Amino acid sequence: MRQNPQRRAALLDAAIEVLAREGSRGLTLRAVDAEAAVPTGTSSNYFANRAQLLVQILHRTRERLTPDPTPDPADLAGPLDTKVLLGRLLARMRRERSVHTAMLELRLEATRRPELQAELSGFQGAGLEANIAWHLEAGLPGDRQGVVLIHLAMLGLIVDDLTVPGLLDPHPVEGLIEAMVERLLPERPAD
Amino acid sequence: MRQNPQRRAALLDAAIEVLAREGSRGLTLRAVDAEAAVPTGTSSNYFANRAQLLVQILHRTRERLTPDPTPDPADLAGPLDTKVLLGRLLARMRRERSVHTAMLELRLEATRRPELQAELSGFQGAGLEANIAWHLEAGLPGDRQGVVLIHLAMLGLIVDDLTVPGLLDPHPVEGLIEAMVERLLPERPAD
Repeated sequence: MRQNPQRRAALLDAAIEVLAREGSRGLTLRAVDAEAAVPTGTSSNYFANRAQLLVQILHRTRERLTPDPTPDPADLAGPLDTKVLLGRLLARMRRERSVHTAMLELRLEATRRPELQAELSGFQGAGLEANIAWHLEAGLPGDRQGVVLIHLAMLGLIVDDLTVPGLLDPHPVEGLIEAMVERLLPERPAD
Repeated sequence: MRQNPQRRAALLDAAIEVLAREGSRGLTLRAVDAEAAVPTGTSSNYFANRAQLLVQILHRTRERLTPDPTPDPADLAGPLDTKVLLGRLLARMRRERSVHTAMLELRLEATRRPELQAELSGFQGAGLEANIAWHLEAGLPGDRQGVVLIHLAMLGLIVDDLTVPGLLDPHPVEGLIEAMVERLLPERPAD
Protein backbone atom coordinates (compact mmCIF):
# COMPACT_ATOMS: atom_id res chain seq x y z
CA MET A 1 0.00 0.00 0.00
CA ARG A 2 1.22 3.51 -0.85
CA GLN A 3 1.76 5.86 2.06
CA ASN A 4 1.89 9.45 0.76
CA PRO A 5 -0.26 11.11 3.47
CA GLN A 6 -1.35 14.13 1.40
CA ARG A 7 -2.42 11.90 -1.48
CA ARG A 8 -4.24 9.55 0.90
CA ALA A 9 -6.11 12.48 2.52
CA ALA A 10 -7.07 13.84 -0.91
CA LEU A 11 -8.44 10.41 -1.93
CA LEU A 12 -10.42 10.17 1.32
CA ASP A 13 -11.84 13.66 0.79
CA ALA A 14 -12.88 12.60 -2.72
CA ALA A 15 -14.49 9.48 -1.23
CA ILE A 16 -16.45 11.68 1.23
CA GLU A 17 -17.83 13.71 -1.70
CA VAL A 18 -18.80 10.54 -3.59
CA LEU A 19 -20.52 9.08 -0.50
CA ALA A 20 -22.43 12.32 0.16
CA ARG A 21 -23.49 12.74 -3.46
CA GLU A 22 -24.12 9.15 -4.57
CA GLY A 23 -24.80 7.24 -1.35
CA SER A 24 -22.90 4.22 -0.14
CA ARG A 25 -23.76 2.02 -3.13
CA GLY A 26 -22.19 4.63 -5.43
CA LEU A 27 -18.88 4.41 -3.57
CA THR A 28 -16.35 2.38 -5.56
CA LEU A 29 -12.58 2.74 -5.78
CA ARG A 30 -13.06 3.69 -9.43
CA ALA A 31 -15.56 6.47 -8.51
CA VAL A 32 -13.02 7.81 -5.99
CA ASP A 33 -10.32 7.93 -8.66
CA ALA A 34 -12.68 9.84 -10.98
CA GLU A 35 -13.70 12.30 -8.22
CA ALA A 36 -10.06 12.92 -7.26
CA ALA A 37 -9.10 13.30 -10.96
CA VAL A 38 -6.30 10.73 -10.67
CA PRO A 39 -5.57 7.78 -12.98
CA THR A 40 -7.88 4.78 -12.60
CA GLY A 41 -6.26 2.32 -10.22
CA THR A 42 -4.70 4.95 -7.94
CA SER A 43 -7.11 4.29 -5.04
CA SER A 44 -6.39 0.57 -5.14
CA ASN A 45 -2.76 1.43 -4.37
CA TYR A 46 -3.92 3.05 -1.12
CA PHE A 47 -6.85 0.87 0.00
CA ALA A 48 -6.82 -2.93 -0.19
CA ASN A 49 -10.58 -3.02 -0.71
CA ARG A 50 -13.83 -1.12 -0.19
CA ALA A 51 -14.13 -2.23 3.47
CA GLN A 52 -10.74 -0.67 4.27
CA LEU A 53 -11.74 2.47 2.44
CA LEU A 54 -14.92 2.76 4.58
CA VAL A 55 -12.95 2.46 7.83
CA GLN A 56 -10.42 5.06 6.72
CA ILE A 57 -13.19 7.47 5.69
CA LEU A 58 -14.57 7.16 9.23
CA HIS A 59 -11.26 8.30 10.70
CA ARG A 60 -10.88 11.05 8.10
CA THR A 61 -14.27 12.51 9.12
CA ARG A 62 -12.89 13.06 12.62
CA GLU A 63 -9.84 14.90 11.24
CA ARG A 64 -12.16 17.07 9.17
CA LEU A 65 -14.45 17.84 12.11
CA THR A 66 -11.86 18.39 14.84
CA PRO A 67 -11.72 22.08 15.69
CA ASP A 68 -8.70 24.11 14.68
CA PRO A 69 -6.05 23.71 17.41
CA THR A 70 -5.39 27.48 17.39
CA PRO A 71 -7.63 28.80 20.18
CA ASP A 72 -10.30 31.29 19.19
CA PRO A 73 -9.29 34.73 20.56
CA ALA A 74 -12.73 34.92 22.21
CA ASP A 75 -11.86 31.87 24.35
CA LEU A 76 -8.89 33.64 25.91
CA ALA A 77 -11.04 36.56 27.03
CA GLY A 78 -13.27 34.66 29.44
CA PRO A 79 -14.48 31.32 30.74
CA LEU A 80 -15.51 28.59 28.28
CA ASP A 81 -19.18 28.68 27.40
CA THR A 82 -20.94 25.52 26.21
CA LYS A 83 -23.47 27.57 24.19
CA VAL A 84 -20.64 29.22 22.24
CA LEU A 85 -18.94 25.85 21.65
CA LEU A 86 -22.16 24.22 20.39
CA GLY A 87 -22.93 27.22 18.18
CA ARG A 88 -19.49 26.76 16.60
CA LEU A 89 -20.17 23.03 16.15
CA LEU A 90 -23.33 23.87 14.22
CA ALA A 91 -21.57 26.54 12.11
CA ARG A 92 -18.83 24.03 11.27
CA MET A 93 -21.44 21.42 10.39
CA ARG A 94 -23.05 23.84 7.96
CA ARG A 95 -19.67 24.44 6.30
CA GLU A 96 -18.93 20.69 6.15
CA ARG A 97 -22.27 19.25 5.06
CA SER A 98 -20.65 16.57 2.88
CA VAL A 99 -18.70 15.20 5.84
CA HIS A 100 -21.86 14.84 7.95
CA THR A 101 -23.86 13.37 5.09
CA ALA A 102 -21.03 10.87 4.46
CA MET A 103 -21.03 10.04 8.19
CA LEU A 104 -24.79 9.27 8.07
CA GLU A 105 -24.16 7.06 5.03
CA LEU A 106 -21.47 5.22 7.00
CA ARG A 107 -23.88 4.76 9.93
CA LEU A 108 -26.44 3.19 7.60
CA GLU A 109 -23.82 1.05 5.89
CA ALA A 110 -22.75 -0.16 9.35
CA THR A 111 -26.24 -1.64 9.91
CA ARG A 112 -25.37 -3.99 6.99
CA ARG A 113 -21.67 -4.71 7.69
CA PRO A 114 -20.73 -6.11 11.10
CA GLU A 115 -17.02 -5.26 10.70
CA LEU A 116 -17.83 -1.60 9.96
CA GLN A 117 -20.30 -1.54 12.86
CA ALA A 118 -17.59 -2.77 15.26
CA GLU A 119 -15.25 -0.02 14.04
CA LEU A 120 -17.98 2.63 14.22
CA SER A 121 -18.98 1.56 17.75
CA GLY A 122 -15.41 1.89 18.99
CA PHE A 123 -15.02 5.22 17.23
CA GLN A 124 -18.27 6.76 18.48
CA GLY A 125 -17.90 5.28 21.98
CA ALA A 126 -14.42 6.75 22.40
CA GLY A 127 -15.65 10.11 21.08
CA LEU A 128 -18.56 10.26 23.53
CA GLU A 129 -16.42 9.24 26.53
CA ALA A 130 -13.78 11.84 25.56
CA ASN A 131 -16.50 14.51 25.38
CA ILE A 132 -17.81 13.62 28.82
CA ALA A 133 -14.33 13.56 30.36
CA TRP A 134 -13.37 16.86 28.74
CA HIS A 135 -16.57 18.56 29.90
CA LEU A 136 -16.27 17.38 33.50
CA GLU A 137 -12.55 18.17 33.71
CA ALA A 138 -13.13 21.68 32.35
CA GLY A 139 -15.43 22.20 35.35
CA LEU A 140 -18.34 23.29 33.14
CA PRO A 141 -21.86 23.11 34.60
CA GLY A 142 -23.73 19.83 34.22
CA ASP A 143 -23.19 16.14 34.86
CA ARG A 144 -22.35 13.01 32.83
CA GLN A 145 -25.99 12.33 31.91
CA GLY A 146 -26.41 15.94 30.80
CA VAL A 147 -23.45 15.65 28.40
CA VAL A 148 -24.94 12.45 26.90
CA LEU A 149 -28.29 14.23 26.44
CA ILE A 150 -26.55 17.19 24.76
CA HIS A 151 -24.84 14.69 22.42
CA LEU A 152 -28.25 13.19 21.52
CA ALA A 153 -29.98 16.55 21.02
CA MET A 154 -27.11 17.88 18.87
CA LEU A 155 -27.15 14.67 16.79
CA GLY A 156 -30.89 15.14 16.22
CA LEU A 157 -30.32 18.81 15.34
CA ILE A 158 -27.59 17.91 12.84
CA VAL A 159 -29.72 15.18 11.19
CA ASP A 160 -32.71 17.54 10.85
CA ASP A 161 -30.62 20.50 9.69
CA LEU A 162 -28.87 18.32 7.11
CA THR A 163 -31.89 16.50 5.70
CA VAL A 164 -34.92 18.79 6.33
CA PRO A 165 -33.28 22.23 6.33
CA GLY A 166 -36.47 24.29 6.75
CA LEU A 167 -37.97 22.22 9.58
CA LEU A 168 -36.58 24.31 12.41
CA ASP A 169 -37.24 27.72 10.81
CA PRO A 170 -40.13 28.39 13.24
CA HIS A 171 -37.78 27.48 16.13
CA PRO A 172 -34.55 29.45 15.68
CA VAL A 173 -31.56 27.23 16.26
CA GLU A 174 -29.68 29.71 18.45
CA GLY A 175 -32.59 29.73 20.90
CA LEU A 176 -32.77 25.93 20.85
CA ILE A 177 -29.06 25.60 21.66
CA GLU A 178 -29.38 28.13 24.48
CA ALA A 179 -32.38 26.34 25.99
CA MET A 180 -30.72 22.93 25.53
CA VAL A 181 -27.65 23.97 27.51
CA GLU A 182 -29.61 25.78 30.24
CA ARG A 183 -31.98 22.86 30.79
CA LEU A 184 -29.68 19.87 30.25
CA LEU A 185 -26.57 21.25 31.95
CA PRO A 186 -27.79 23.08 35.03
CA GLU A 187 -25.25 24.44 37.51
CA ARG A 188 -24.29 21.73 40.01
CA PRO A 189 -25.24 22.45 43.59
CA ALA A 190 -22.18 23.39 45.69
CA ASP A 191 -20.75 20.45 47.66
CA MET B 1 -52.72 2.98 -11.55
CA ARG B 2 -54.18 0.05 -9.60
CA GLN B 3 -55.89 0.88 -6.34
CA ASN B 4 -56.17 -2.31 -4.24
CA PRO B 5 -55.17 -0.82 -0.84
CA GLN B 6 -53.97 -4.10 0.75
CA ARG B 7 -51.79 -4.87 -2.25
CA ARG B 8 -50.43 -1.32 -2.30
CA ALA B 9 -49.57 -1.50 1.44
CA ALA B 10 -47.87 -4.88 0.95
CA LEU B 11 -45.75 -3.45 -1.91
CA LEU B 12 -44.78 -0.43 0.23
CA ASP B 13 -43.81 -2.71 3.12
CA ALA B 14 -41.66 -4.71 0.71
CA ALA B 15 -40.10 -1.43 -0.49
CA ILE B 16 -39.30 -0.50 3.14
CA GLU B 17 -37.44 -3.82 3.56
CA VAL B 18 -35.50 -3.27 0.33
CA LEU B 19 -34.56 0.29 1.36
CA ALA B 20 -33.43 -0.83 4.82
CA ARG B 21 -31.44 -3.79 3.52
CA GLU B 22 -29.96 -2.42 0.27
CA GLY B 23 -29.98 1.35 0.68
CA SER B 24 -31.68 3.82 -1.62
CA ARG B 25 -29.67 2.89 -4.70
CA GLY B 26 -30.88 -0.71 -4.36
CA LEU B 27 -34.51 0.40 -4.49
CA THR B 28 -36.00 -0.36 -7.90
CA LEU B 29 -39.56 -1.31 -8.85
CA ARG B 30 -38.20 -4.70 -9.91
CA ALA B 31 -36.52 -5.25 -6.50
CA VAL B 32 -39.84 -4.41 -4.81
CA ASP B 33 -41.64 -7.02 -6.95
CA ALA B 34 -39.03 -9.63 -5.99
CA GLU B 35 -39.22 -8.75 -2.27
CA ALA B 36 -43.04 -8.90 -2.31
CA ALA B 37 -42.91 -12.19 -4.28
CA VAL B 38 -45.27 -10.86 -6.97
CA PRO B 39 -44.85 -11.05 -10.77
CA THR B 40 -42.33 -8.63 -12.26
CA GLY B 41 -44.21 -5.53 -13.41
CA THR B 42 -46.72 -5.52 -10.54
CA SER B 43 -45.19 -2.46 -8.81
CA SER B 44 -45.28 -0.46 -12.01
CA ASN B 45 -49.06 -0.90 -11.98
CA TYR B 46 -49.14 0.90 -8.61
CA PHE B 47 -46.38 3.50 -8.88
CA ALA B 48 -45.81 5.61 -11.99
CA ASN B 49 -42.07 5.83 -11.24
CA ARG B 50 -39.45 5.60 -8.52
CA ALA B 51 -40.06 9.19 -7.33
CA GLN B 52 -43.73 8.37 -6.67
CA LEU B 53 -42.71 5.22 -4.87
CA LEU B 54 -40.38 7.21 -2.57
CA VAL B 55 -43.15 9.66 -1.63
CA GLN B 56 -45.61 6.86 -0.91
CA ILE B 57 -43.05 5.03 1.26
CA LEU B 58 -42.74 8.22 3.31
CA HIS B 59 -46.46 8.21 4.04
CA ARG B 60 -46.46 4.46 4.71
CA THR B 61 -43.78 4.92 7.40
CA ARG B 62 -46.19 7.15 9.31
CA GLU B 63 -48.95 4.52 9.14
CA ARG B 64 -46.48 1.94 10.42
CA LEU B 65 -45.29 4.15 13.29
CA THR B 66 -48.62 5.60 14.44
CA PRO B 67 -49.57 4.05 17.78
CA ASP B 68 -52.41 1.59 17.98
CA PRO B 69 -55.66 3.62 18.37
CA THR B 70 -56.85 1.27 21.14
CA PRO B 71 -55.78 3.01 24.36
CA ASP B 72 -53.36 1.14 26.57
CA PRO B 73 -55.23 0.04 29.76
CA ALA B 74 -52.48 1.74 31.79
CA ASP B 75 -53.46 5.11 30.27
CA LEU B 76 -56.98 4.87 31.67
CA ALA B 77 -55.70 4.34 35.20
CA GLY B 78 -54.00 7.71 35.64
CA PRO B 79 -52.74 10.90 34.01
CA LEU B 80 -50.65 10.73 30.82
CA ASP B 81 -46.94 10.51 31.49
CA THR B 82 -44.48 11.72 28.85
CA LYS B 83 -41.80 9.30 30.11
CA VAL B 84 -44.13 6.34 29.54
CA LEU B 85 -45.07 7.61 26.07
CA LEU B 86 -41.41 8.08 25.04
CA GLY B 87 -40.49 4.67 26.44
CA ARG B 88 -43.20 3.16 24.23
CA LEU B 89 -41.89 5.13 21.23
CA LEU B 90 -38.45 3.57 21.77
CA ALA B 91 -39.88 0.06 22.24
CA ARG B 92 -41.86 0.47 19.01
CA MET B 93 -38.75 1.71 17.23
CA ARG B 94 -36.87 -1.39 18.31
CA ARG B 95 -39.66 -3.58 16.91
CA GLU B 96 -39.75 -1.57 13.65
CA ARG B 97 -36.07 -1.08 12.89
CA SER B 98 -36.55 -1.45 9.14
CA VAL B 99 -39.05 1.40 9.08
CA HIS B 100 -36.64 3.76 10.84
CA THR B 101 -33.68 2.67 8.72
CA ALA B 102 -35.79 3.23 5.59
CA MET B 103 -36.76 6.67 6.92
CA LEU B 104 -33.07 7.60 7.35
CA GLU B 105 -32.43 6.41 3.79
CA LEU B 106 -35.27 8.66 2.60
CA ARG B 107 -33.80 11.60 4.52
CA LEU B 108 -30.44 11.09 2.78
CA GLU B 109 -32.10 10.61 -0.62
CA ALA B 110 -33.94 13.90 -0.01
CA THR B 111 -30.60 15.75 0.12
CA ARG B 112 -30.21 14.71 -3.55
CA ARG B 113 -33.81 15.12 -4.83
CA PRO B 114 -35.49 18.51 -4.36
CA GLU B 115 -39.01 17.14 -4.98
CA LEU B 116 -38.55 14.49 -2.25
CA GLN B 117 -37.08 17.13 0.06
CA ALA B 118 -40.18 19.34 -0.39
CA GLU B 119 -42.43 16.39 0.45
CA LEU B 120 -40.30 15.37 3.44
CA SER B 121 -40.24 18.96 4.78
CA GLY B 122 -44.03 19.21 4.66
CA PHE B 123 -44.37 15.80 6.23
CA GLN B 124 -41.89 16.37 9.07
CA GLY B 125 -43.05 19.95 9.68
CA ALA B 126 -46.68 18.88 10.04
CA GLY B 127 -45.65 16.03 12.35
CA LEU B 128 -43.64 18.32 14.63
CA GLU B 129 -46.37 20.98 14.82
CA ALA B 130 -48.98 18.28 15.58
CA ASN B 131 -46.77 16.94 18.39
CA ILE B 132 -46.38 20.39 19.91
CA ALA B 133 -50.12 21.13 19.68
CA TRP B 134 -51.04 17.73 21.16
CA HIS B 135 -48.61 18.13 24.04
CA LEU B 136 -49.78 21.63 24.96
CA GLU B 137 -53.49 20.77 24.63
CA ALA B 138 -53.04 17.69 26.82
CA GLY B 139 -51.84 20.09 29.52
CA LEU B 140 -48.60 18.14 30.04
CA PRO B 141 -45.69 19.92 31.72
CA GLY B 142 -43.30 21.87 29.46
CA ASP B 143 -43.43 24.49 26.73
CA ARG B 144 -43.18 24.62 22.92
CA GLN B 145 -39.38 24.82 22.95
CA GLY B 146 -39.19 21.87 25.32
CA VAL B 147 -41.23 19.70 22.94
CA VAL B 148 -38.91 20.62 20.05
CA LEU B 149 -35.88 19.72 22.19
CA ILE B 150 -37.48 16.37 23.11
CA HIS B 151 -38.03 15.75 19.39
CA LEU B 152 -34.33 16.43 18.70
CA ALA B 153 -33.05 14.31 21.58
CA MET B 154 -35.33 11.38 20.65
CA LEU B 155 -34.21 11.65 17.00
CA GLY B 156 -30.59 11.48 18.17
CA LEU B 157 -31.42 8.52 20.42
CA ILE B 158 -33.11 6.67 17.56
CA VAL B 159 -30.21 7.31 15.15
CA ASP B 160 -27.64 6.08 17.69
CA ASP B 161 -29.73 3.09 18.81
CA LEU B 162 -30.29 2.08 15.19
CA THR B 163 -26.76 2.51 13.87
CA VAL B 164 -24.43 2.11 16.90
CA PRO B 165 -26.49 -0.19 19.14
CA GLY B 166 -23.91 -0.60 21.93
CA LEU B 167 -23.02 3.09 22.25
CA LEU B 168 -25.46 3.89 25.02
CA ASP B 169 -24.89 0.69 27.04
CA PRO B 170 -22.97 2.63 29.73
CA HIS B 171 -25.88 5.13 29.88
CA PRO B 172 -29.11 3.11 30.27
CA VAL B 173 -31.77 4.44 27.94
CA GLU B 174 -34.56 4.41 30.53
CA GLY B 175 -32.53 6.77 32.73
CA LEU B 176 -31.77 9.01 29.74
CA ILE B 177 -35.46 9.29 28.83
CA GLU B 178 -36.36 10.08 32.43
CA ALA B 179 -33.70 12.80 32.72
CA MET B 180 -34.62 14.18 29.28
CA VAL B 181 -38.26 14.66 30.29
CA GLU B 182 -37.48 16.06 33.75
CA ARG B 183 -34.97 18.57 32.42
CA LEU B 184 -36.52 19.59 29.11
CA LEU B 185 -40.18 19.63 30.19
CA PRO B 186 -40.20 21.17 33.65
CA GLU B 187 -43.54 21.92 35.33
CA ARG B 188 -44.78 25.32 34.25
CA PRO B 189 -45.05 27.89 37.05
CA ALA B 190 -48.68 28.50 38.06
CA ASP B 191 -50.19 31.60 36.45
